[in-house]
Amino acid sequence: MIKIKLLTVHKIKEDWLQSALQLYEKRMQASCQLEWILAKTEVQLEALSVKEPHFIALDPHGKSFDSAQFSKWILKTAENWRGKLTFVIGGPDGLTETCKKKASFLWSLSPLTFTGQITRLLLVEQLYRAFEINKGSGYHK
Amino acid sequence: MIKIKLLTVHKIKEDWLQSALQLYEKRMQASCQLEWILAKTEVQLEALSVKEPHFIALDPHGKSFDSAQFSKWILKTAENWRGKLTFVIGGPDGLTETCKKKASFLWSLSPLTFTGQITRLLLVEQLYRAFEINKGSGYHK
Repeated sequence: MIKIKLLTVHKIKEDWLQSALQLYEKRMQASCQLEWILAKTEVQLEALSVKEPHFIALDPHGKSFDSAQFSKWILKTAENWRGKLTFVIGGPDGLTETCKKKASFLWSLSPLTFTGQITRLLLVEQLYRAFEINKGSGYHK
Repeated sequence: MIKIKLLTVHKIKEDWLQSALQLYEKRMQASCQLEWILAKTEVQLEALSVKEPHFIALDPHGKSFDSAQFSKWILKTAENWRGKLTFVIGGPDGLTETCKKKASFLWSLSPLTFTGQITRLLLVEQLYRAFEINKGSGYHK
């Protein structure tokens, strides 16, 4: 089973987001184990990120994929990283320069800016979609 | 005040989405009037869309913007279209070919595929962000 660490700053503010994340996390139980690590500050987020042997940082200037490409790439990456994936979502001011430099990969969800809260949902939904595409289920259609 | 019509298929399935949309719609009350029009089928969605004098269709192969560009563009478009904006979000099989051909503009939120449910949230959040960027508030940072 793939272990996924999700590093970000601040707690979940919105009740609706809590419900949405729980829903996707439940659906993904069979495919992966998700762990949220919430830093208190961006400095702490940087410190936690750079301790990871590999991590994918979400950045609007990163590389983008369509969902099928992302599915293939992320499952290959999980294989290369011995079943462990780490994602880092920056705070309101984005990621620190050090965080970007040390990241194994910069991934852009969209050229649009979303709140950190919505980014959490998009990331989790794309991970779920990636597993479903890989399984060949009908979810992604 | 700008009048915005949002045309899509099927009801909102998820409670969390209902809450999230209500939250953003409340925040936007001062800037615009939002109206959801929910078609029952994709054929009905097409029929409703093509009756509009102008409409923006959401399509992964459309043009993409960053949030600042979208803000400028959408406010200019609202001016050109006499204060009335219409957006069309396709169902699980995307938009019909006729709908794409008749659209005034095809806009891509991201090369990734999202559910129609999440797309509603992203669209409403980007509209809110567009107004806030235009006002020069701190929201978008």
